[in-house]
Amino acid sequence: MSATPYEALTPETVAARLGDIVAVSAHAGPSETWQVSEVGDGNLNLVFIVTGAAGQVIVKQALPYVRLVGESWPLPLKRAFFEYNALIRQAARAPGMVPEVYHYDDAQALVVMEFLTDHVILRQSLMQGIRHEGLGGLLGLFCARTLFRGSDLSMNTAERKRDLARFAENIELCDITENLVFSDPYFAAPMNRHTPALDPIVEMLRGDRDLKVAAQHLKAAFANNAETLLHGDLHTGSVMVCGDKARVIDPEFATYGPIGFDVGMLIANFLMAACAVPGHLADTAEQASYQDWILATATEVWDNFAQEFTHLWRNERKGILYQSTLFEDQNDVLGAEQARLDRLAAIWRDALGFCGVEMHRRILGLAHIAEYDQIADETLRARCEARGLMLGRALVIGRETIRTMTDVTDLARSILGKDYL
Amino acid sequence: MSATPYEALTPETVAARLGDIVAVSAHAGPSETWQVSEVGDGNLNLVFIVTGAAGQVIVKQALPYVRLVGESWPLPLKRAFFEYNALIRQAARAPGMVPEVYHYDDAQALVVMEFLTDHVILRQSLMQGIRHEGLGGLLGLFCARTLFRGSDLSMNTAERKRDLARFAENIELCDITENLVFSDPYFAAPMNRHTPALDPIVEMLRGDRDLKVAAQHLKAAFANNAETLLHGDLHTGSVMVCGDKARVIDPEFATYGPIGFDVGMLIANFLMAACAVPGHLADTAEQASYQDWILATATEVWDNFAQEFTHLWRNERKGILYQSTLFEDQNDVLGAEQARLDRLAAIWRDALGFCGVEMHRRILGLAHIAEYDQIADETLRARCEARGLMLGRALVIGRETIRTMTDVTDLARSILGKDYL
Repeated sequence: MSATPYEALTPETVAARLGDIVAVSAHAGPSETWQVSEVGDGNLNLVFIVTGAAGQVIVKQALPYVRLVGESWPLPLKRAFFEYNALIRQAARAPGMVPEVYHYDDAQALVVMEFLTDHVILRQSLMQGIRHEGLGGLLGLFCARTLFRGSDLSMNTAERKRDLARFAENIELCDITENLVFSDPYFAAPMNRHTPALDPIVEMLRGDRDLKVAAQHLKAAFANNAETLLHGDLHTGSVMVCGDKARVIDPEFATYGPIGFDVGMLIANFLMAACAVPGHLADTAEQASYQDWILATATEVWDNFAQEFTHLWRNERKGILYQSTLFEDQNDVLGAEQARLDRLAAIWRDALGFCGVEMHRRILGLAHIAEYDQIADETLRARCEARGLMLGRALVIGRETIRTMTDVTDLARSILGKDYL
Repeated sequence: MSATPYEALTPETVAARLGDIVAVSAHAGPSETWQVSEVGDGNLNLVFIVTGAAGQVIVKQALPYVRLVGESWPLPLKRAFFEYNALIRQAARAPGMVPEVYHYDDAQALVVMEFLTDHVILRQSLMQGIRHEGLGGLLGLFCARTLFRGSDLSMNTAERKRDLARFAENIELCDITENLVFSDPYFAAPMNRHTPALDPIVEMLRGDRDLKVAAQHLKAAFANNAETLLHGDLHTGSVMVCGDKARVIDPEFATYGPIGFDVGMLIANFLMAACAVPGHLADTAEQASYQDWILATATEVWDNFAQEFTHLWRNERKGILYQSTLFEDQNDVLGAEQARLDRLAAIWRDALGFCGVEMHRRILGLAHIAEYDQIADETLRARCEARGLMLGRALVIGRETIRTMTDVTDLARSILGKDYL
């Protein structure tokens, strides 16, 4: 199949084209038993569920353009290469937290992977008021393990530099992040959209010099500070959940960047979900209670990230940075701890900044989130979005002084009942 | 010649092996007129001067090991590739400031380049008390132009990412910097050496937790924060001077790193030269006067760097960072200026840190500098070195609070007469 030129799959062609691949039929059964449906609801790709006599698999294939926009916005097929390479690294660094890859075809830009039975996209749960026990803990662990183990704190640096060179080719997807997250939301870029009632707030934010400068500092950090291999798009639409289980999917935006990026983007999506609760749950007591759960989950993400980062710092710090030769081996444990706290403080500060800009771009930019978009009442939607915008600004501007997740959730609670319109 | 396997040149084989290359004979004349001498006094490579009927050229060839250490420390020939690629980029970004390249041979790991008639290595001048008018200005310009134009402030980012991937392969030379500059000086690493009388200060520095932690933060910034294409080894042994002219040579350590690295390393070498003056000039009045000139030159490096960086920021900011779309185009010039001052403050802070660790590694590590090493009186040498060590610490630890070059030169003057032994 690799010799065949790229051709987009259809539900009708999947069996003929993938039926002979043992890695696939081993999981789905013989191709004559397959039923195939296309379920891609993301912005970029084709996604098929293949159901056969032996089970189910997911087939994800890149399209040569942005699905959300169409053929007018070409996008390289090579993103499948980066997704595949990120998935196998994440599987090694955070075992059990990403779908298992069964098959990768470079020419067809497709990955065949584990079907996550009964899992749903986390955003669905967040709109339905469903609680997932331990979710924040799992996601915090995922962040710490992938981000620490992909950095110069842990990796052989020659291997890291080679990997950095490989992922530096993920130019077009980085370009999307660089523009859509850090720049477009802060001026009237052509692809932006927002709920019209937000106009006054949008005007205020786009005239906010400190905010724009800060967003650009964050863009510089994202574009230049290649600390670790990021997931690169770690929002609640990239998390699948089932009860107390969770998996992280869709790392095609993987790139080397600052550790705080994934953590901050993830927390942003919880904070926005909390802002959107009044659009999905009718009962006000249940609204408050569910917002509490979401904020507690965001807190768990950071707390478990920091705790596992600390554990890995103390036990797996084998890279070129902060070598034990200089600290523990000199009987200077406190030196290593002091350095760890400095690093965590820097990651925290970065994370707050990335969190804030993510909240802005999901309300003002091209790619919005279901939690807001599915609020049909436009006034209510705008009210919920306005809270996200204002909270986002507070986090970006306050990133040097806000110290704990308690500060963050206090800020969130202080505006959840407020009407900015 | 490219088809021939690598073979190290000797003065006897240069004419036979390079005589047919038109790019070389155009500058040196016919090979039968050539006289060849090997003059490499650096740590790594072979360097030949070829003198012929039409003129002179430099032939620089990498050896498959570190010349300073020998065959026991292998080093890839590929460093010639990075030197060549850095030279042609620097020539485009800072015209007139690097030797012109006449010929590059990848397989033979050699670069044939312009011979800089009557130029000497700047370190020689700094030991002889020679003043070069405008030197700091030229070097400040070189830093600003190469570092700004090689960054996401200026370049097309896809091109920059491809270039980053290319230079990420300069693994072994980065490894030298990472170990020898940032780690080895701070513990009893096998390759270190220092003047024995420094023992008490060395012990103090190696027990200085804040210093070690800071050095590791700087290492993290060097290893990860790929802001621009650095020269990577910009000390006063990489500068050739002739009267009021100056050129920068030897960029084989070129790598993507933080803008402050080149600037800080360069200033460090001026500060150490100032510390070493009593070892080279007998007259105390002349010592003080020459130290004034060196410190004024270091000040000019920063001032001209900052001034040219500002000019380029205002006139050539065409990259993905701090786009004019968000500032000038919104009638927000002050936003762009605020961001510029933030960036310069960050570069300054980094530069002070890199400056301090460079001062340490040149006294405590493997690679020392002639200004200190050539002080035969060991007590005097140790006294001069001790001042460098103490000043270096002050700069690393004070990098968040020291604000201007006046602060730096005041610190230097406050210790130039002090005896720490």
